[in-house]
Amino acid sequence: MFQISVPVFDRRLKAHAAIMDKAAAHAEARKIEPQAFMMDRLYPDMFPYWLQVQSACDHAKNSVARLTGQQLPIFEETDKTFAGLKTRIDRTLGFVNSTAAEAFAGADERTIVFTQNGRERQTTGMDYFQNSALPNFYFHLTTAYGILRHNGVEIGKRDFIG
Amino acid sequence: MFQISVPVFDRRLKAHAAIMDKAAAHAEARKIEPQAFMMDRLYPDMFPYWLQVQSACDHAKNSVARLTGQQLPIFEETDKTFAGLKTRIDRTLGFVNSTAAEAFAGADERTIVFTQNGRERQTTGMDYFQNSALPNFYFHLTTAYGILRHNGVEIGKRDFIG
Repeated sequence: MFQISVPVFDRRLKAHAAIMDKAAAHAEARKIEPQAFMMDRLYPDMFPYWLQVQSACDHAKNSVARLTGQQLPIFEETDKTFAGLKTRIDRTLGFVNSTAAEAFAGADERTIVFTQNGRERQTTGMDYFQNSALPNFYFHLTTAYGILRHNGVEIGKRDFIG
Repeated sequence: MFQISVPVFDRRLKAHAAIMDKAAAHAEARKIEPQAFMMDRLYPDMFPYWLQVQSACDHAKNSVARLTGQQLPIFEETDKTFAGLKTRIDRTLGFVNSTAAEAFAGADERTIVFTQNGRERQTTGMDYFQNSALPNFYFHLTTAYGILRHNGVEIGKRDFIG
């Protein structure tokens, strides 16, 4: 469970931090207000960019905490800016990477209680990870990428993979 | 390796087949030409919807084949329609689900040779799966979802998860 979570979160989130550097440089070069990216959505009732990134971070930190029986870390609000979101990624990875591989022993069979779509669910660590944490992580990270791409930021899939 | 691949591909692709039913019904109810969804992209140099779905299918079937030392299955072209793409998903899952869990023994350390960004790469099964196959699968499936959502199809994240 360690191998399929921590290194994946680390590499993809660092990749997204590098994508944000490209987006910020793109905005500056073209005199685009960075908030135009930050607040954009693919559809009015979807999350804006900043919340897609924050959600990806939350699924990473919360799943590592739940799988290893730690308290869910609470981070103070960060600015809705590229710099603020990079801080969010740093804090997330600080927690994720400080969790030892040994702490994941038995995590696949650990009982996980979490809230999904407003109702409490209980399942195994493996089911929770494969059918909630990881698809949610990739969902929000890909959608964040898609918002930047839709707005003309020059990035490609290899930037996404890292 | 079986547990983190086959059941995930099965559940997410079946979920996307159900999403296509909703998209087709949405198109019919509003007298929208389904090709308007099929050919849309989030940006001109990104894949259109149909190719996002086909790419997700390809990463699923190719990774299962590579991890278990099978020939990569070649499927004949399917129509660029919701029905055609559902057939593609059926064929993909037919192959994926016919691969026994036992065939994945040692897959994490198996040497995988594949082409990425036009150049040949060689790595372990685990690295290939975590840093190519699975992120690509989720990337294309989420982008397909994002294209439909961006066009007003009434679906939500729970449709994506399945």
